[in-house]
Amino acid sequence: MADNGATYDPENIFAKILKGEIPCHKIYEDEDTFAFLDIMPRTDGHALVITKEPARDLFAISPGALAKVMAVVQTLAPKIKEASARRVLIQQFNGAAAGQTVFHLHVHIVPRKAGVPMRPEAAKMADPEELKATAEKIKAVLEG
Amino acid sequence: MADNGATYDPENIFAKILKGEIPCHKIYEDEDTFAFLDIMPRTDGHALVITKEPARDLFAISPGALAKVMAVVQTLAPKIKEASARRVLIQQFNGAAAGQTVFHLHVHIVPRKAGVPMRPEAAKMADPEELKATAEKIKAVLEG
Repeated sequence: MADNGATYDPENIFAKILKGEIPCHKIYEDEDTFAFLDIMPRTDGHALVITKEPARDLFAISPGALAKVMAVVQTLAPKIKEASARRVLIQQFNGAAAGQTVFHLHVHIVPRKAGVPMRPEAAKMADPEELKATAEKIKAVLEG
Repeated sequence: MADNGATYDPENIFAKILKGEIPCHKIYEDEDTFAFLDIMPRTDGHALVITKEPARDLFAISPGALAKVMAVVQTLAPKIKEASARRVLIQQFNGAAAGQTVFHLHVHIVPRKAGVPMRPEAAKMADPEELKATAEKIKAVLEG
C-alpha cells in the first residue's frame, strides 16, 4: 500500500496477524496490545509491539491505546534485554519517509550490542526455527 | 559518564538543562515533562522530550512518567511534522550500545524526508540562530 499519510488499510499485514490470518512468532498478548518477533530482524530478538486499534501511526492512535502499547514496551524491553544480553533501542516510524513499511502503529524493540551493526531494514527473512527459538527464550524470561 | 547500566548521574547534561544551569531551545514544558531541540540535530527540527523524573532509561522510569512523556511526544510530533513538512521518526535509546549518549531518559522526534539522509549522531553543533528560529516555528504551530 502506498503511503498516503492518512488511510488505515484493514488488510495490512499486521491487521492480518491480529486476525490470525497470517502466522507470527507471538511473545505477548493482552486485550489491547500484541507483540511478536520481526520476521526480518535487524538484530536477533528484534520484536514489535502493536496496538489492537486500527491506527496507522502516532498521529492516529488514541492516547489511551498508545499508553498501553508503551506499558507493554516497558514490560517487554527488560525481558528482551535479559534474554538477549543486549542494550535496547526503541524505534517507532511514522510515514514511509521515516522508515515505516507497515501502516499499522508498531514500536520496535531492537537488542543492540556495541560493535555489532544492525542488519539493513527489510533485508532478509529470518530462519523460522531461529525465530521460534528466540520467541521461546523471551517467553521463558517473561514467564520466569 | 561511563555507561554502567544502572546509576543515575544527577549532573548529566539534561539534568542541568532541567535545573536551568545549561541553556536550551525549549519548545514545551509542563509539570512532568520538558521538550527542547537537540543541539546536534540529525535533521532540522530534531527535538527531545524528557521526563522530569531522575530516570536514566526505559528500565528506570516509572510507568506513569513514561505515559506522560509519550503523551507529550504524541502532542508534539504532529506539530513538528507540520512545522517541518516531514514525516516523523521516534527513537529512544537505552544504553550506550544502543546509541544512548546522555543517561537521562529521552525520546527523539526526528523529522524525515524521503531521500534526505540523517546527519550522523552527535556529529555537529547546530547554528544557535537556526535552532532558535526552528524552535520559534514549532512553538508557533503549537500555540496556533
